[in-house]
Amino acid sequence: MLPIAIDVMSGDHEPREYLAGALRALTDDPQLCVQLVGEPQLITAALAPLPASVRARATVVAASQVVAMEDKPREAIRRKKDSSMRLAIDLVQQGRACACVSAGNTGALTAIAHFVLGTLPGVERAAIISAIPAAHGHTHMLDLGANTKATPEQLRQFAAMGAIIARDVYGLAAPRIGLLNIGEEDMKGHEVVQAAHALLTRSGLNYVGFVEGDDIFSGAVDVVVTDGFTGNVALKTVEGAIRGTAKLVFDTLSSPEVSQAAEGVMPALLAAAQELDPDYIGGCTLLGVDGICVISHGSSNALAMRSSVHRAVECVEAHVVDRMKEAVADAG
Amino acid sequence: MLPIAIDVMSGDHEPREYLAGALRALTDDPQLCVQLVGEPQLITAALAPLPASVRARATVVAASQVVAMEDKPREAIRRKKDSSMRLAIDLVQQGRACACVSAGNTGALTAIAHFVLGTLPGVERAAIISAIPAAHGHTHMLDLGANTKATPEQLRQFAAMGAIIARDVYGLAAPRIGLLNIGEEDMKGHEVVQAAHALLTRSGLNYVGFVEGDDIFSGAVDVVVTDGFTGNVALKTVEGAIRGTAKLVFDTLSSPEVSQAAEGVMPALLAAAQELDPDYIGGCTLLGVDGICVISHGSSNALAMRSSVHRAVECVEAHVVDRMKEAVADAG
Repeated sequence: MLPIAIDVMSGDHEPREYLAGALRALTDDPQLCVQLVGEPQLITAALAPLPASVRARATVVAASQVVAMEDKPREAIRRKKDSSMRLAIDLVQQGRACACVSAGNTGALTAIAHFVLGTLPGVERAAIISAIPAAHGHTHMLDLGANTKATPEQLRQFAAMGAIIARDVYGLAAPRIGLLNIGEEDMKGHEVVQAAHALLTRSGLNYVGFVEGDDIFSGAVDVVVTDGFTGNVALKTVEGAIRGTAKLVFDTLSSPEVSQAAEGVMPALLAAAQELDPDYIGGCTLLGVDGICVISHGSSNALAMRSSVHRAVECVEAHVVDRMKEAVADAG
Repeated sequence: MLPIAIDVMSGDHEPREYLAGALRALTDDPQLCVQLVGEPQLITAALAPLPASVRARATVVAASQVVAMEDKPREAIRRKKDSSMRLAIDLVQQGRACACVSAGNTGALTAIAHFVLGTLPGVERAAIISAIPAAHGHTHMLDLGANTKATPEQLRQFAAMGAIIARDVYGLAAPRIGLLNIGEEDMKGHEVVQAAHALLTRSGLNYVGFVEGDDIFSGAVDVVVTDGFTGNVALKTVEGAIRGTAKLVFDTLSSPEVSQAAEGVMPALLAAAQELDPDYIGGCTLLGVDGICVISHGSSNALAMRSSVHRAVECVEAHVVDRMKEAVADAG
């Protein structure tokens, strides 16, 4: 396997956090090779204490610029040609890396990936997918914000791509696909979801029909398809609702009347809470460009970066780019 | 105060559930008068065991039809003119009730209310609002699904109406209003939210800018404005995420290793869980029509109906319809 290119500079936090996560992934997986893209002194210093056998699997790629979280996508394409993000994506395009991972600005990453890698044949726009913890394991939801709108045809393409991730990365034989709407009856929703529903019903996909927001968790489907505006709102809403509910639980258990009894249940609850923790989920994957790009997000950035590198490896091993090419053509 | 008209027939559950909730509200509040709209025998039988002082405040209004959950809005208007839902709304229009409450088909209720009551001057479309439990108490979110789309001007009207509920029903002096988007930066989102942002910035409202899905809970704003598609998805997502998280907590506490210790914390957790329970929140209110319509929803329908009747009383006492007329005009 070719190395994974990791942008260790971009994101809300310090590069050393991302470097720590990348190096943990490298230490965990003796088959993994990485290209660490960023400030060479920083990277070299972080590599120094590692065993020679681990260091041997890392290459340093020097980048003189960083895409900032507030950079506009178009500006990032034009003015940040030597940024760690751009160089990581360039390495994929040049066939020198099999995937790239970045914790940086999602809009810039999406735009640069479109510009450098191009979209797959039959794919008009890339979409962002992530695995959300649900009653039956995970629900794969896309688009989580690569676009602010989607046409019916683009929603069909998202469905075909999402099914590949659920099947080839998560091992579901025939992933059930639902289209997010505000009611399950056929006549509900605006004209875009109505037209997408008609396209999906005629497609070769295992499409089960409209689903509602609570079906992201119910286990009714494996893949939830929606436009990037609705998907991003839903994703952030999930994060907020889980955090709010968890806070209520832990605040209740901290009250003096129950704190003694709470000591007995806290370790089990904290372990369970990991299931809902985005740091363990492995980030978001940009689907539909001609290469694998994983967007790392989470509160503990080292952990999130490590999970994201693992996710990139899984996507490479499952040949998701080739499988998506076939799937989008088949479902058309 | 005029009586509240209560549709005791429509909804997913048995009329006796709704009747039980209505009669609990009637028993709780010695000032309350109600018109119970539906099957007269059912209602009379339910009233029979109550004390004469309570019965005296209830009137039976006979309805020969029921709007079904699957009835299309247009068909409900045309063919269900003697339904409990229609008659309850008619009573408001005729000035014989000060508000109506129904647990029925939201689409039909919205359509009938538009048709019978009309919208307020300056309001193009009604919107559905509800109070969602949040870090600072509640966040008032609208539109939760009265419409599948909204124009920028309609979003401005929703903001003005939502602020009245937060101020006059919930007592917030200057409710902070946010517009739901997929990023907080000014350039984010599609053209509808961009144009609405410009309108709201120029309005006299206490508009603080774009917010994201997690701000529904964060306490950053008091009112979250969005179109009915996004709002309905977000609401259902909140319900699913809370239910999923609560299930994980209770499943964890039921495991044999911790079940002993869990007994000590369970009563406190169950009490805390009430804060997140839609049955206690008082349903959704349809804003922008010339009258008060509360839509009752919840898993325990008697409880939900009782909360919804209380919500209707609060709206009447706060003169929300008159206040909205002024507010929509002022903010224009």
